[in-house]
Amino acid sequence: MITKTLELPRTPDFNTYPSNQLITQAVLLTNGVEVTWNDGFKSRFHTLWLRDNCASEHSIKLSTREPIFEIDEVAKNLSIESVSVDDSGSLVIHWQPEDYISRYHPGWLRCYAYDIEGELTPVFKFERKLWDRESLGEVPTFDGPTVLTNPEESAAWIRSIYTTGLGLLRNLPPEQQSSADAAALIGSLRNSSFGVFFHVRADINRPVADSVAYTNIALPLHTDLATRELQPGVQMLFCLTNDAEGGENVFVDAFRVAEDLRQSEPEIFRNLCETIWEWKYSTKEEDYRVEGPIIVLDRYNQIREVRSITYQRGTLQVPYNQVDACYKALLTWYRRVKESRYQVRFKLQPGDLIAFDNRRILHARTHFNLSGGSRYLIGCYVDTDDLMSKMRVLSRGQS
Amino acid sequence: MITKTLELPRTPDFNTYPSNQLITQAVLLTNGVEVTWNDGFKSRFHTLWLRDNCASEHSIKLSTREPIFEIDEVAKNLSIESVSVDDSGSLVIHWQPEDYISRYHPGWLRCYAYDIEGELTPVFKFERKLWDRESLGEVPTFDGPTVLTNPEESAAWIRSIYTTGLGLLRNLPPEQQSSADAAALIGSLRNSSFGVFFHVRADINRPVADSVAYTNIALPLHTDLATRELQPGVQMLFCLTNDAEGGENVFVDAFRVAEDLRQSEPEIFRNLCETIWEWKYSTKEEDYRVEGPIIVLDRYNQIREVRSITYQRGTLQVPYNQVDACYKALLTWYRRVKESRYQVRFKLQPGDLIAFDNRRILHARTHFNLSGGSRYLIGCYVDTDDLMSKMRVLSRGQS
Repeated sequence: MITKTLELPRTPDFNTYPSNQLITQAVLLTNGVEVTWNDGFKSRFHTLWLRDNCASEHSIKLSTREPIFEIDEVAKNLSIESVSVDDSGSLVIHWQPEDYISRYHPGWLRCYAYDIEGELTPVFKFERKLWDRESLGEVPTFDGPTVLTNPEESAAWIRSIYTTGLGLLRNLPPEQQSSADAAALIGSLRNSSFGVFFHVRADINRPVADSVAYTNIALPLHTDLATRELQPGVQMLFCLTNDAEGGENVFVDAFRVAEDLRQSEPEIFRNLCETIWEWKYSTKEEDYRVEGPIIVLDRYNQIREVRSITYQRGTLQVPYNQVDACYKALLTWYRRVKESRYQVRFKLQPGDLIAFDNRRILHARTHFNLSGGSRYLIGCYVDTDDLMSKMRVLSRGQS
Repeated sequence: MITKTLELPRTPDFNTYPSNQLITQAVLLTNGVEVTWNDGFKSRFHTLWLRDNCASEHSIKLSTREPIFEIDEVAKNLSIESVSVDDSGSLVIHWQPEDYISRYHPGWLRCYAYDIEGELTPVFKFERKLWDRESLGEVPTFDGPTVLTNPEESAAWIRSIYTTGLGLLRNLPPEQQSSADAAALIGSLRNSSFGVFFHVRADINRPVADSVAYTNIALPLHTDLATRELQPGVQMLFCLTNDAEGGENVFVDAFRVAEDLRQSEPEIFRNLCETIWEWKYSTKEEDYRVEGPIIVLDRYNQIREVRSITYQRGTLQVPYNQVDACYKALLTWYRRVKESRYQVRFKLQPGDLIAFDNRRILHARTHFNLSGGSRYLIGCYVDTDDLMSKMRVLSRGQS
């Protein structure tokens, strides 16, 4: 074993990268460098790409790993004077005319290597566990006060919201602050025209119930704020009272439904990904509209989100000869998500907070009876940006 | 002139539609209806589409015009018993098995007619006025207290933010509430990990300036929160003090730059629309990342937004043979937006609030000198959803 006198260099972020993937050789090319790793794998990197991703103190701010230089300004007559591999197995580059040395962490470089056969894969990838009623079994359930105070338990709850799309907290004090505290474990509260906290209760004194949510009637399966460009990523519904008859919550993993359609009815699936529907919410003072498909794929053809709300779907605008196929796909979708084999259904108790991925899990509620009881939920949202930030930070030590 | 005994029917939203486009004939087809308007134009509508867009009291809630039925449930054995045109020039349909009558506003129906040659056009479209320094001339400027109290002036300010991407309010009381009041004219305040209000001042007592914004150094042209899936639509910077030397604000209409590139360097333009860059912001506790191109087009090939921030751009991940072209496009973009012919530049005075479209207008600030003066801006955001809702409501009377 060789004793190393040099530490591996900093990376352009705070992640952990493999420390056993070391570089054994580096060769200067006309427009970059070719490196060979200790397992024999080779890959080329462009001059500009290397300079752009320099993580030395000369190039980035330590607290955020943000560049403190502008690549278009250093690029004008940039060149590599020499390349080498140092004692730590890192790539070393001597730049001109800056007369400046960069070192590259070999594990980071290998992770971001783009000179490969076939398709690039995402660097950050977390597995989801799609479910139907039978495969989910119990909704993942956690003790609320423990989650609020114990970092490992809060991490487990956060991972559950990403992985299964759901995480139920129990035994929280039945006051609004509990939902604020739970949301703060993930990120910032998201605002909307319905307020930072929205109060889901039937209120016969409300002059106009400007959303059907604020009545006692059943709500069909839907995503919230589908009429906004960005649907909220995490929705939290916190139960203060629920002794009215009825008013169960229903949840469906729409990614499971969509993947089943991708297998069994690929034309329907494709139509759901491609047809641009309008989603709208309007009153005398407001007119929110957004266009988007029911299923959104990412650039790796993975399902990124669904958008689906029966009573806020607007007017279809596609060429005449596409209309029949679009309605066929829409009706297939609506009927599929209603199949009971996909649904979990339960009644929230006071102190229960259910957090779910609003862009994946459709939710509904059954009708409830106002005589002889009440039902009062407090809702709030946190964006997917915040959830993913937490997921990345939680994964930093796991490479 | 014929005296009409019937009013035109309700539409599925609160907009105004032409009342001079009337229907003269309606014919039942196998899978829908063909209508003829009073100017001779004909178009066909599908059975399901018509039922889906029924705006009668039987089908929608009056306060929000939301459907109160589910199209997949009525669709099972839906049929049209008869069609006709009534005295108001509206289409009348008698449905079975519901045994129910729908009436359709002819101006609305014409506006949404999809049985046309060529491409469909958006129903809601507002003109933008792209600019460079010379064509903009003065930044559109308004008296703040008047805008806050006079609906016509607030409408003019809101239209200016959409149309030119900028609107400056003057003479506001120099306290945080002023920016809250201005934001409330458009919509809800958007939250982020930097807070609902962010305080842009150099603070030598801050242990770690977790963004370069909170120092006195120059900031290159950028969009804010480019590391989030949805960049804020409207940014407001409100000046409390600004007597330090330097610290001018710079604004560039990036849509103008992009359209110029579309004309002069179409390959560069295309690369900027297609290359997926990573945008990231990370600290020891946070790791925000998003992937997206520098120029985003909508489905009509119009520019929808730009995303551009030098110091929060992450690592490019594209196949090896695309790297050179991507950097060429990136450097062209960075160098173009810096050209002084595109820049307006001015110094905010206490009581000034500049509102701008953060997804269109790049902003920068010059270095400022902390000795012998101070500079303190309060920033906040409102989403494009809210701006567009206001634009649509303001246009309702104008058809």
